[in-house]
Order: sequence, then C-alpha cells, then structure tokens
Amino acid sequence: MNILIIYAHPEPKSLNGTIKDFYVSYFEGNGHQVKVSDLYAMKWKASADGSDFTTYNQKKRLHYMQSSGEAFANGTQTKDITQEQEKILWADLIIFQFPLWWFGMPAIMKGWVDRVFAFGFAYGTGKYGGKYWGNRYGDGPLMGKKAMLSITIGGRKPQYEETGINGHINDLLFPIQHGMLWYAGISIIPPEVLYQVHNISETNLEDYLETLKNKLNNIQSVPTIPYRFQNQGDYNEQQQLKSEMLNGKSGFSIHLK
Amino acid sequence: MNILIIYAHPEPKSLNGTIKDFYVSYFEGNGHQVKVSDLYAMKWKASADGSDFTTYNQKKRLHYMQSSGEAFANGTQTKDITQEQEKILWADLIIFQFPLWWFGMPAIMKGWVDRVFAFGFAYGTGKYGGKYWGNRYGDGPLMGKKAMLSITIGGRKPQYEETGINGHINDLLFPIQHGMLWYAGISIIPPEVLYQVHNISETNLEDYLETLKNKLNNIQSVPTIPYRFQNQGDYNEQQQLKSEMLNGKSGFSIHLK
Repeated sequence: MNILIIYAHPEPKSLNGTIKDFYVSYFEGNGHQVKVSDLYAMKWKASADGSDFTTYNQKKRLHYMQSSGEAFANGTQTKDITQEQEKILWADLIIFQFPLWWFGMPAIMKGWVDRVFAFGFAYGTGKYGGKYWGNRYGDGPLMGKKAMLSITIGGRKPQYEETGINGHINDLLFPIQHGMLWYAGISIIPPEVLYQVHNISETNLEDYLETLKNKLNNIQSVPTIPYRFQNQGDYNEQQQLKSEMLNGKSGFSIHLK
Repeated sequence: MNILIIYAHPEPKSLNGTIKDFYVSYFEGNGHQVKVSDLYAMKWKASADGSDFTTYNQKKRLHYMQSSGEAFANGTQTKDITQEQEKILWADLIIFQFPLWWFGMPAIMKGWVDRVFAFGFAYGTGKYGGKYWGNRYGDGPLMGKKAMLSITIGGRKPQYEETGINGHINDLLFPIQHGMLWYAGISIIPPEVLYQVHNISETNLEDYLETLKNKLNNIQSVPTIPYRFQNQGDYNEQQQLKSEMLNGKSGFSIHLK
C-alpha cells in the first residue's frame, strides 16, 4: 500500500510526533511505501486566499471556490497545493495525526483541507441540477481511497461517550469524517483515539502502541464506517433522508446505513 | 453595548464583507461601540506554535497548553494574542462572521480560537480534581458575554435541516457554539445563517439584511441557547448526563435544557 500521513503538531518530540514515527516505521517495516506531510515542518500556509492561484488579479473580486476550480482545471494552483494533491492521488490510505484542539483539527490542518481539497479535485464533479447534486458523499472524485483519523485528547473517555458533556466523539468527528472525507469519496476506517494524554506513562503508551499495531496488522480488512451514499436512493430530491430510512433515529447517526 | 466582530474572508468585496459592514454601520448608527478583527487584513497568524510565547526556548520540548497557561499568567504571550484578549474582555457581544468551509470555520478563524483562547483566559480556571472539573460550560471565565455566529453557506437549507444530507446545522455548529464558546462561559445567541449565497440577487440580499436588522433591534432580549451548565447538577461525577435528564433523546441535543 501507499500511505500518506498528514501530521500536525508544533513539537517534534510530542506524543503526536511519537505516534507519527510509529506509523512510519511500522508501515515501512511491513513493506509499504510511506510519505509524510509534516505541516508544521513544511510551514504550511493555513489561510486560503487569492495567492493560492498563480493568475490571481488583486483588482478583481475573488470568488475562492470558483477560482479554485479554474486554477485546478488550468494548472494555475500554487505548487504547495499541487504537491499535496499528487500525494493524495498516490495514496491508498491517508492517516491524519493530530491533537484535538477545541473539538476539531488544529488550524494548520484545517487549512490543509481548505486549500488542497480544491473544486474539481475533491468535489464539484458530476452533474448538478434537477434531481442530481454532483458526485458527493461516497461517489466523490477520491473514491477508492481510505482515511483514518488518529487523535490525541487531553480529556477523559467518559466525557466523550454517548452522554458525555463534550458530546460523543463520533458526532464531534462527523464534520471531518463525513463532511470532508466521505464527501470527497474517501471511505473511513474508524478513528484511533488516545485519551488522557497529559503525562501519559511509558507503560500506557507502550500498551497503546501494541494495540495499535494489532489494528494495523489487519488494516486492509477493517470495516469502514457505513455512511450512506448520496446517490443510491436513501435521500429524496431535497437531499433529505427518506422517512422510511429513519427507524426512529435522530442526529448524525441517521446517515449510517 | 461594546461589540466585537471577528471577521474572516479573504475578499473585502465579498458577501461576508458586506454583511460585516452592515453590522458595523447598524451598531454604530444605534449608539454602540464597535471593534472589528479583520483576520485576513491583519494577516492573522493561524498556526499555534512556540513562537506564541516570548520566552519560548526551542531546545525545550513544547507543551502548548502548559506554555499557554504560563505565558498568560506571566505576561509573556505575543502582542497579537493579548490585543485580541483585550478586545474580548472589552466586548459585551462577539459576532463571528464567516463562510462555512468544509462544515467549519475557515482555518484562519480556527487559528484565532486556538491561539487567543489561552489556558487561564478562556479555560483552565476553577478547581480540578475529585468531583470537580473546573469552570467550564457556562461557568467559564468569559461568563456574562454573549456571542453570535453569522454564517454564509453555498448549499441549500433543506440539506442542513433535521434529515438533510449534510447534517443538521445546529449539530454542525455544536463544536463551535458549545465546545468553544459555551465552554469558555459565553452565552450563545442563535446563529444567523444565510443559505444559497452564490450569485445571490440584490433583492434577496436586501431582504436578508432587513430581517437581520429586525433581529438586531431586539438583540439584547433574544433568548440564548439553553445549553446545560456543567456545575448545576445535570451531569454525574464522570461528567455524563444523568439518565433522568435524557427524556429519550440522543445526540448533541441532550445538552440542551
């Protein structure tokens, strides 16, 4: 397999750095190819703006999405963006390694998505209009690839369970897993979440990496999250879930088959 | 009132820019004080790292949260951070004006939260340990302030309703409204959301701003979102909602009173 690791932590000696290094050595040791986008080390530009397009004219009003589509089609994206897109196209599996900050990605990683997931590359393909809303949610242009979030969290697990005060971790990750990745066609391997990471002991870390290794040994057969496809009949013309699919459920979990 | 607008859009002539300008002229015209943090114009540094602390020593392993707390306590945060904190302390109402990108804030605004919401300033106060988990969720250090998200969305409203394919807009905004703002003690005025903004007509925009004006005329009496307080008995010692509070509900909405 070709594995791309998108890694966001400002401190190389951090726990996130250690876990990232573990992935690299595990996969390389098992005969896979690995590339790492170390966003802090790359000084990744987080903020999407007109300078992402080599033909940007400051005097013209910028429509970011539209310019993104034109630049993707015309080969006028900046090199930092096209390099990441090439890595994605190369990869079979993308691992996102990051600390959960304010219940989401660190800004530098959100800016990787904002800029790299260009119109035409990660969305905006297929027929729009009438009953049809493009190739999204399962059918996106990156279909066939898999991704897995690998996250560290300072807080305790019970606070991220069904009734935990922070909200269920699956729901907190929905905008990323469903809204960014599945939207683009990428299938999601259930996330790796390590809780209570502040002052984690050597032993606990070793245990964690041992468990992780066992998961990775079977990574190709781990069932992905069964999000519903947009275009397989579950949603009506308004793109709302058909009532017969609800089964009394509510919330984000209705979008699971 | 003192009103702070946190505004994130790379194009001054954008719809977001127009709405931001509308807020400024409305509030100033009604005798309020207004400050704007125009993040793109300020070239706001989005990525949290060691250089956020004036005493940062590259040779020492960085623990961002811990360093953030020390720097806040010792007055060694960088000036761009303290200036934003002073604006927050000054403000009665904070309005976040941004386009919803990939179901969240643009990276530059996420980076404003990551860096400005320092340990000791927006969280990390109060007693920790035993049954007590600090002053969070309603009791945070920014208690008494209000905030409102003001968002533009390219997609259509039905896709963001209860059964819409993107997920309910209230749930998509939960990590921001509950996880960032309410966590810090800020009460939330229900969000302003403008859908289908691509090529919006002059008439539709005028209608929208007219409706918005009517809301703003009564902004001080609009009921805030009734999120549960952490420390008022609704949660058990594990910080999970007590079962008698559930009323058969599930998902993020269980955290509403």
